Amino acid sequence: MSQRIAVIDLGSNTTRLVAYDYDPGLRFHLIDEVREVVRLREGMGANMVLRAASIDRALRAMRMFHMLCQASGIDDVVMTATSAVRDARNGDSFLARVRGETGWEPWLLSGEEEGYYGALGAINGTGLRNGFVVDLGGGSAQIVEVRDRCPQRCVSLPFGALRLSDMFLGYDRGRAADVEALRAFMAKHLAGVDWFKARPGDTLVAIGGTIRNLAKMDQMSGSYPLEGVHGYWLGADVVAQMADRLWRMTTKERSRLPGLDDQRADIIQSGALAYAQLLAHSGFDGITVSQQGLREGIFYKRFLAGRPQPIIENLREFSVYNLARNFGCVNPHSQHVTKLALSLFDQLQPAHRLPASYRELLWAAGILHDIGISIDFYYHHFHSAYIIINSGLPGYSPRELALIALLTRYHRKHNPKAGEMAPLLTAADRDALTPLAAMLRLAEYLERGRSQVVRDVRCHLDQAGGWLQIEALAAGDASVELWDANRNLDLLKTALGLEVELVAGVWMGEGERVAR
Amino acid sequence: MSQRIAVIDLGSNTTRLVAYDYDPGLRFHLIDEVREVVRLREGMGANMVLRAASIDRALRAMRMFHMLCQASGIDDVVMTATSAVRDARNGDSFLARVRGETGWEPWLLSGEEEGYYGALGAINGTGLRNGFVVDLGGGSAQIVEVRDRCPQRCVSLPFGALRLSDMFLGYDRGRAADVEALRAFMAKHLAGVDWFKARPGDTLVAIGGTIRNLAKMDQMSGSYPLEGVHGYWLGADVVAQMADRLWRMTTKERSRLPGLDDQRADIIQSGALAYAQLLAHSGFDGITVSQQGLREGIFYKRFLAGRPQPIIENLREFSVYNLARNFGCVNPHSQHVTKLALSLFDQLQPAHRLPASYRELLWAAGILHDIGISIDFYYHHFHSAYIIINSGLPGYSPRELALIALLTRYHRKHNPKAGEMAPLLTAADRDALTPLAAMLRLAEYLERGRSQVVRDVRCHLDQAGGWLQIEALAAGDASVELWDANRNLDLLKTALGLEVELVAGVWMGEGERVAR
Repeated sequence: MSQRIAVIDLGSNTTRLVAYDYDPGLRFHLIDEVREVVRLREGMGANMVLRAASIDRALRAMRMFHMLCQASGIDDVVMTATSAVRDARNGDSFLARVRGETGWEPWLLSGEEEGYYGALGAINGTGLRNGFVVDLGGGSAQIVEVRDRCPQRCVSLPFGALRLSDMFLGYDRGRAADVEALRAFMAKHLAGVDWFKARPGDTLVAIGGTIRNLAKMDQMSGSYPLEGVHGYWLGADVVAQMADRLWRMTTKERSRLPGLDDQRADIIQSGALAYAQLLAHSGFDGITVSQQGLREGIFYKRFLAGRPQPIIENLREFSVYNLARNFGCVNPHSQHVTKLALSLFDQLQPAHRLPASYRELLWAAGILHDIGISIDFYYHHFHSAYIIINSGLPGYSPRELALIALLTRYHRKHNPKAGEMAPLLTAADRDALTPLAAMLRLAEYLERGRSQVVRDVRCHLDQAGGWLQIEALAAGDASVELWDANRNLDLLKTALGLEVELVAGVWMGEGERVAR
Repeated sequence: MSQRIAVIDLGSNTTRLVAYDYDPGLRFHLIDEVREVVRLREGMGANMVLRAASIDRALRAMRMFHMLCQASGIDDVVMTATSAVRDARNGDSFLARVRGETGWEPWLLSGEEEGYYGALGAINGTGLRNGFVVDLGGGSAQIVEVRDRCPQRCVSLPFGALRLSDMFLGYDRGRAADVEALRAFMAKHLAGVDWFKARPGDTLVAIGGTIRNLAKMDQMSGSYPLEGVHGYWLGADVVAQMADRLWRMTTKERSRLPGLDDQRADIIQSGALAYAQLLAHSGFDGITVSQQGLREGIFYKRFLAGRPQPIIENLREFSVYNLARNFGCVNPHSQHVTKLALSLFDQLQPAHRLPASYRELLWAAGILHDIGISIDFYYHHFHSAYIIINSGLPGYSPRELALIALLTRYHRKHNPKAGEMAPLLTAADRDALTPLAAMLRLAEYLERGRSQVVRDVRCHLDQAGGWLQIEALAAGDASVELWDANRNLDLLKTALGLEVELVAGVWMGEGERVAR
């Protein structure tokens, strides 16, 4: 039974509500998101008192969120507050007012909880196994170590973009002396965090508005072919350059930079300086951006309730089925096309010589190849690719996402073109695309009648002779499949550089392939 | 309760199966389509006997369709045959074999039935009110007169593209004398059809593979921004040029023409000549292409069972709700945004001076503005536009479709750009886009909390003073809506060239607007 939940986090700079529609443990879909820049920390200064104007802005946003939940019939609402309220001497009074106006029971997260749930979102959003998650918000930054996909120790430091602007740089063009003071402040705090150091195989994932915005700006400076920033990798050198450049500009100048959100133009310089220093300290050569963070982490706790850890077991598999389920597109045909394509991949390994990493992409493309039918049947291969690119598949990198989308794009007709998704794909990817698409296409036509009559394939490969025979092992009349698959063999011939013949074979039952 | 049906038509050149998922009278979605070129009429000659090879090809296709239906769990199958079987002396035997192999009860359509159902598909697909539907297939052409959306008299003529090639031009480069013979043959037959003449206000709609292909070729020769051919208008001059050019080329030369389906490269020349002559005879200045034809007509009979005529009452409204329902996106928020946008449109008429035809597009955009959330929330305005463009909205022209899509594209942010959908839109459309998007956007932000708290708006327009006040008539606390709508007024100010202020007003109940 489908359920709905809203998660709100009230940060130092921004508050956001996200609403999900979900079947526990099975699938979820983001159905609403509202964001307000409330700047709750603004003017808090050394007194550590939330100011009247800030309280008014925050309460107005909470009232709106409350109305929105009521109107949408969402009564499961988790409202959290973070560092501004945590640090404020009048935080209790403020939360009591929120409680009074909304009836919610606000949850004031400790720095450790904030780090833990942020890391949970990042782990379930990117598949991070070992490394660190940095959540740099308006008022604080949490650094969480992750080992074997579990959040470990955590530290919360006063490195928020708003707070650093407040303390050091101000909100317009900075001064070199203030930058130095900011750096010294950070260095002092980081000195005690000697465990935040890159080990071999470690990845650094960052969440929050600052890193998303830096990533967007970097994307806009080149010809990046995707819209979203999830999974985007930002090099340490680029971050250092941005950090060095942004504080020297006025807010007006910054607000003209492509990709920069106007409402961040006066604090992004502090955020960039903070990230540059975090990278220098930890020794990572870059940061992977996660769109999922604190709110998602809190959602996962509910979504995966009852499990020992609220961590998705197999993230890639989950993401693919989550998308398929959201479009009502889990069916025997897609499963069987996938099975045939993977059987071809395995048996033709000596011919295509592709590493196993591509097999997983072929699997995903097989499950999702027909998802575009929801938009329109006739060009559904295009629509499948569009949906995959734009919905995203957490756990796959943007490069892998692009490859999966291109495989669905070419599962029926036409041949992969040279320049597509250009800067994302490697030369090896380009070479892999045609054989992978060819195997998926053959599998699709061997499942032409959607009856699973061709149970499997058996490949007889004679590479020296430049020749391949594929037996379609059928449990019944597969004349149509054979005939149609035969008409669609060209891409495979081209991809493998072999003569390919397709012949009828007989399916002898599950033991058959094992026995031969 | 959702049902499934498959409709098959076995024509002279092609056979197709389409499968629909539908709720009777409410919504439907094409879920599968399989096409085979079987050339049933090939070699039939003057003997009028279906040849063995043709029968084999057709039976193989029917077996495949049968397997497909069984595997998909579709037991409601309507299988129809048209002119090749109708004309053949051994048509009965052939149909008995189909019956024997599939268990279906084949329905041999008369020429009049073929015309009627084809026209039904075209009427429900384009909203044709008065004029004619031409269905030019492989073996015959049906001409149906349509008055007040109902099919009237019909004639079936032996003008199929395959048959004309068979009789006159052959399958490669033609000869001038043969073209003359073809023309004379058509003229003789058309002489008796004196009622097939354009009257003022009439539209000519054509269905079938030939016209779709001609349209596609014309699209590919320019910079047409949409993929589909449904609703495309093909000028009589263009058809005449194509007709004059195609028969002079070899099949190999034709097969290289952009947009031409390889499998039609040897018969398209006859089809083009036939259309040119039909246009010359009837006096229409062009043809509107309908993607929907015979199969869809037969589907509509089932879909609209129980109505006096299987014709959709209000096609535009139906198409919009059909799409919204297919994406599970009919909800009070979208309804209310639409209501507010139309209220603005009506009250601001003296300021924007847009004709009422745009009001209907604003309505459609309002109902569909959030449909893209199914793909991804963050860029859902883009996705809404993508879905609309690619799913299509029967009853709206491609130009109107593009406008509706652009309105959803701009319902949240950014401003319409100059060149979008360039060749489809008129200068008036471009001028209309900004005020329409501005009204939709204001309506969206007045429904920010999705609670319908702003029940309506009241506009006080002082054009001489260059000034407009909009009262948001609220039944409760609408401070959030007012505040957020205020932040998003810029586009409306630009569009109307007025100072705009938004103020709180109080909703006095339904009688309020009438009484004032």
